[in-house]
Amino acid sequence: MAKLASATGAMRTRSSSHHKTIRAQDVDALVRGCAVLGAGGGGDAFMFRIMAELALAETGPVPLKSLDELPEDGIVLPLAMVGAPMVFAEKILSGLEGILLRDEIEDALDRKVVAVMAPEIGGGNGVLPLAWAAHLGLPYVDADGMGRAFPTIPMTTMHLAGLPVSPGVIVDARNNVLRFETCDNFWAERLIRGATTSMGAMTSSVLYPMSVRDARRSTVLGSVSKALRVGSLLSVGADGVSRAVAELRATVLTVGKVVDIERRIEYGWVRGSLTVEGSGEYKGRLLHIEIQNENLVALEEGKVRASVPDLITVLETDSGVVISTERLRYGQRVTVIGFASDPVWRTPAGLQLGGPRAMGYDFDFVPIEEINA
Amino acid sequence: MAKLASATGAMRTRSSSHHKTIRAQDVDALVRGCAVLGAGGGGDAFMFRIMAELALAETGPVPLKSLDELPEDGIVLPLAMVGAPMVFAEKILSGLEGILLRDEIEDALDRKVVAVMAPEIGGGNGVLPLAWAAHLGLPYVDADGMGRAFPTIPMTTMHLAGLPVSPGVIVDARNNVLRFETCDNFWAERLIRGATTSMGAMTSSVLYPMSVRDARRSTVLGSVSKALRVGSLLSVGADGVSRAVAELRATVLTVGKVVDIERRIEYGWVRGSLTVEGSGEYKGRLLHIEIQNENLVALEEGKVRASVPDLITVLETDSGVVISTERLRYGQRVTVIGFASDPVWRTPAGLQLGGPRAMGYDFDFVPIEEINA
Repeated sequence: MAKLASATGAMRTRSSSHHKTIRAQDVDALVRGCAVLGAGGGGDAFMFRIMAELALAETGPVPLKSLDELPEDGIVLPLAMVGAPMVFAEKILSGLEGILLRDEIEDALDRKVVAVMAPEIGGGNGVLPLAWAAHLGLPYVDADGMGRAFPTIPMTTMHLAGLPVSPGVIVDARNNVLRFETCDNFWAERLIRGATTSMGAMTSSVLYPMSVRDARRSTVLGSVSKALRVGSLLSVGADGVSRAVAELRATVLTVGKVVDIERRIEYGWVRGSLTVEGSGEYKGRLLHIEIQNENLVALEEGKVRASVPDLITVLETDSGVVISTERLRYGQRVTVIGFASDPVWRTPAGLQLGGPRAMGYDFDFVPIEEINA
Repeated sequence: MAKLASATGAMRTRSSSHHKTIRAQDVDALVRGCAVLGAGGGGDAFMFRIMAELALAETGPVPLKSLDELPEDGIVLPLAMVGAPMVFAEKILSGLEGILLRDEIEDALDRKVVAVMAPEIGGGNGVLPLAWAAHLGLPYVDADGMGRAFPTIPMTTMHLAGLPVSPGVIVDARNNVLRFETCDNFWAERLIRGATTSMGAMTSSVLYPMSVRDARRSTVLGSVSKALRVGSLLSVGADGVSRAVAELRATVLTVGKVVDIERRIEYGWVRGSLTVEGSGEYKGRLLHIEIQNENLVALEEGKVRASVPDLITVLETDSGVVISTERLRYGQRVTVIGFASDPVWRTPAGLQLGGPRAMGYDFDFVPIEEINA
């Protein structure tokens, strides 16, 4: 018995990250890594980085816990910002959002919250919940509900597992609190989107509150460690991008210059397209990227080279800094990479929810490693 | 002591209505009377009349109670429809709204609801809460929060008395439930309006839940009896309009024909204007009415003859049926009446909230009885 327990302990150590806590000085790597997993979306992390760094400087490191380290009846609090990504870069939060949201959910469920999770690891939404975890004195869960960024609330692995968004809560910086119970997850999206618009295009939310037991079967495990690993590699210097590419087993789709960018805001979403003219070994080739908040499809000579739910990320070649869709500009020197989504998004149900046809494209998904084999 | 108690009892009897219950056959009078108090607004009562008649046929009469007949610690449940008035005439309710709303508020306040009230007596919003009262087995309160209809949620006597809209609840026919706590009543308006738009431009709501004690000092007393009295007079036949005019101590502003109507929908609100060409003793005179959901100002030769918060109501001359602003049409033969608002609306605070300047007009309020003396 002693031997078995010890073996289990060893397995846990192996399967979990070597980051057992997240410190203020780890936030930079987390921001970089979440941006890579954001595939161009997930919201600007500028303000959220500052909030996370300040929070961790004040409270000390936040424990990073895998779901099997948490009590199975405890409640996981998935926290995210909802709204227009550009607003996240400007509007200040009250700082009390995490506490308000935790209190509302504990009241609604009459159970205790044991950890904070990012329902969306990509972009700023992978960073801000860490600040709230610090304020709440709770661990941060090493998992998320997408393994990337997606534009709508039902596009999560929790939804695929049949879990409800409700009871959900949204709050704003004025401490307006709105708690909801919707008939399905698509109505939650609709209602939250409408209310968020009224509340200044940005709200802080609890979505899919659930037991640790449910979280174990319905989330993408290890997302935070992955973001930290990739982000750390990108921080090291000149060969950061190639190290991150290796770590992600990514395909470099092109290296070159942004020569055309067409972008507009529709209902708070960024839509448009981007063309990158290759240089060096990619000289003479054009890569075209379709954008709906995230980078959704990469095309070359009319052929798909990568598509949603696989991830397409645009990085500044020299700095290794990810360029989100709303910050793309003519003339940027970029490296475009593509890499595999979590396997759940490649199942029939996953593709129905988050595949090319779900995003309005008329073609079937082919995994990036098959296209570029 | 026995004498004093008996005197108090007598006073209560005198001050309360002779309608001690509302029966299915009283709904017609209530609909007519609420329409008069709606000043052209408050929502179409077509569907709500049917719901109230069916509910009362099923459950029997609903007690009509004055606030001093109710226990002072009990909760009054002010129920209203929010949204675009024209939608009320088409969209079917689930029927469960009243129960959902009551349950949510009892949970939020952890206290028992003892009666249903209309926060807005005018239009359909004075009629529908009666159906809910029947379903809930609760009395209907002989009071409301406006004494008329007004376009926004803070325009109530409860707001003037310093009471909060929150905790409020809105639900839709799909049983989507949204409970809120806002930083002030103007944010409640903004949030409810946005969420209601997402929920199909029509929601059922609890606004300003309060104790009977608070309701006694913050509502317009006797509104339901008044609507029933006026409505009964209008039902009696040819001289109904003149009887109702006498009962309301109203001024007949004109009798004539609608010769011009300009109307548009802005943010779900009806805006526009109406011109009535006088006939008979009003021949040769034109009355111009400015509309923002309700009839707000009546002008003749550029001079104000009546204005908000006083009530201006347009009735079909022959039938005595009130014509709501969204149903006005060229050629209708109409009688336009004006009458005094509840005195609370004529106080400085009342005028600041619901007077001509609050509605965007550049003149000071003068009571209708002074203008037309």
